[in-house]
Amino acid sequence: MSALPPWVWLDGRLVPTAEARVSPYDRGLLLGDGLYETVRVHRGRGFRAAQHVARLVKSADWLGLALAPEDRAAPAWEERFAALCAANGLGGADARVRITLTRGTGGHVGAPEGLVTTRLVTADALPGDVDAREESGLAAWPVRLMRHPDHAEHKTLALLPSVLAHRWMRARGGNALDEPLFVSPEGWLLEGATSNLFVRRADGALLTPPLSRPILPGVTRAALLELCAEAREADLTLDDLRGAQEAFFTRSTRGVSPIVRLERAPVGDGRPGPRTLAARAAYAALVTRELGV
Amino acid sequence: MSALPPWVWLDGRLVPTAEARVSPYDRGLLLGDGLYETVRVHRGRGFRAAQHVARLVKSADWLGLALAPEDRAAPAWEERFAALCAANGLGGADARVRITLTRGTGGHVGAPEGLVTTRLVTADALPGDVDAREESGLAAWPVRLMRHPDHAEHKTLALLPSVLAHRWMRARGGNALDEPLFVSPEGWLLEGATSNLFVRRADGALLTPPLSRPILPGVTRAALLELCAEAREADLTLDDLRGAQEAFFTRSTRGVSPIVRLERAPVGDGRPGPRTLAARAAYAALVTRELGV
Repeated sequence: MSALPPWVWLDGRLVPTAEARVSPYDRGLLLGDGLYETVRVHRGRGFRAAQHVARLVKSADWLGLALAPEDRAAPAWEERFAALCAANGLGGADARVRITLTRGTGGHVGAPEGLVTTRLVTADALPGDVDAREESGLAAWPVRLMRHPDHAEHKTLALLPSVLAHRWMRARGGNALDEPLFVSPEGWLLEGATSNLFVRRADGALLTPPLSRPILPGVTRAALLELCAEAREADLTLDDLRGAQEAFFTRSTRGVSPIVRLERAPVGDGRPGPRTLAARAAYAALVTRELGV
Repeated sequence: MSALPPWVWLDGRLVPTAEARVSPYDRGLLLGDGLYETVRVHRGRGFRAAQHVARLVKSADWLGLALAPEDRAAPAWEERFAALCAANGLGGADARVRITLTRGTGGHVGAPEGLVTTRLVTADALPGDVDAREESGLAAWPVRLMRHPDHAEHKTLALLPSVLAHRWMRARGGNALDEPLFVSPEGWLLEGATSNLFVRRADGALLTPPLSRPILPGVTRAALLELCAEAREADLTLDDLRGAQEAFFTRSTRGVSPIVRLERAPVGDGRPGPRTLAARAAYAALVTRELGV
C-alpha cells in the first residue's frame, strides 16, 4: 500500500503521522462513537466547507459531543485544512480532507460526562488523473445493504457497510473506481457507498432518492439540485436504472461521476450521457466560481 | 472519570496505556472496520473464552480480516488475558477483558489488500460490588433502535446504537446500571444494548427472542438455554414484558441481571423473581464448575 501522508492535525496541532497517538481507549476506535466529514480541497480551499461543518455540528449536537465555540464554525477548520495541506505538500493540488470527531477517551457504552472530544484532520492527495478517469464513467454494483437505517442522515464512523459493499463488488468483478449501490430490502435504490444517486429516467425526468429514505443528505447532491432545475426527489428501483437514459453519482471528493454500466450491462448507450457531462461541467464551474480557483 | 488501566496488549506485546499508539489512519477508528469480543475473567481465567474466540474468528472470516494461525484459537488469547490482567493488578480479581481487531491502517472504504490486522486487548476491573448490585435487579428502558439489522449477528465496532440508547435512557431517568432494550420498528423485543433478553411470560413459558431477529447470539444466552431446559426462542412484544412473571438480561460481563422494572413500572412484583435468582445461581455454579474458581 502507498505511504501515509506525513502529517495529521490532532487536537490542536500538526503532528507527524508516525508520532500521532490515538489512545487505545478512544471511543471512536472502541465504540464507533463519533462522526466524520470529507471535504474536497481545491488548491488549498475547501468547497462548501461551511455546509460540511454545519452538518458536522448538527450531528455532534445530536450525539452530544462537546464542541468549543471555534470548532462550531468553518473558519477554524479551514485554517487547519490549509495548514495541513501545506505540510503534506498538497498546497497547490486537489486533495481530500477529512475531519474525524470522537466523544473522547474512556468509559463503556454508557459514556461518562465531561469527556474531551478527540479532533482529527487528515489530508490525502487525490490521484492526479482522477478527473479524467471519472469522466469516462463507472459501473454501479447493486447490493442489498444500507447505512444504519435509524441514523443514515448522520455521517457516523460506522462505515462498515460501505467497506463490505466495496469488498463484495470487487469479488464480483468491479474495479476500484466503481461504486456499490445500496438497495433497501423493499427494493428502493438508496445511495452509493459514499455518494448519492441521480437517474435520468426513460421519460426524461431527473430523479434522486428522497431524504425520507435512509440516505445521506449530500452537499454535492444539494448543489446538483440547485444546478439542475428539473431535478427532483422520487423513489427509484433497479428497473428505473436499467431503463435509464443516463445516471450519475455525486460526492464531495469526485463531483459528478457518470454511471455507464449496471454491473456489466450498459446504462443508456454505455457512455457518459450528454446531460450528465453538462451537469458535471456545471458543477466544475460552480466550484471555480465559488472558490475562484 | 476514572483513570485508565495502566497496561494494554497491542500487536504482540504489553505496552503502557499512555504510550500505546494507535495510528490516526487505523481503519477501526476511521471506518469502524473491525470487530470486538468481551470476555469476563474470573481470577485470571476467561469463561468460555473458546466460544468467544470462535465467534470472533467466524466474524473475522466474514469481514476478511487477516488472522495468523495462533490468533484463530483460544490459548494464545487466554495467555494474553492472563498477562494483561496480571500487569493491571487484576490477577486475583474479576475483570472484563476485551479483544478489538481492525483491518489495519490505511486505505479508504475500498480497502487495499495485504493490510496487517490491528490486535488490541484491554482489561478493566469490574466494580467490586457489581454482583450485589446486579442481584437487586435493574430497569429495562425500551427504545426504538437496534444494532445494524444487516449484520447484527457480528460484534462489529459499530456500537453507536448502544451508546445512543444509554444516553436516551439516562435522559429519561434511568441509572447507569439499567439497560436499554432495543425494540424493532415492528414492535418485536430484540435485545439489550449489550445483553440478551429472557422473559418468563404470564403463561409460565421462558422465552428469548429468536436468532432470526437482528440480535447477537450471546455466549451467556447460549449457556442459559443449556441451563434452563424449558427455555426456548419466541417473538416477544412489550405487552409480554409488561405482563411477565419475571424477566432478565444475560451478558458475559454481568451474567444474569434480573429485570424488576420496565421504565418505572414494576415487572412481576417489582423484585427479582425466584426462578430468575435460581437461574442466576445456576449460571454462577456453571462458571465455578467450568473454571474451578
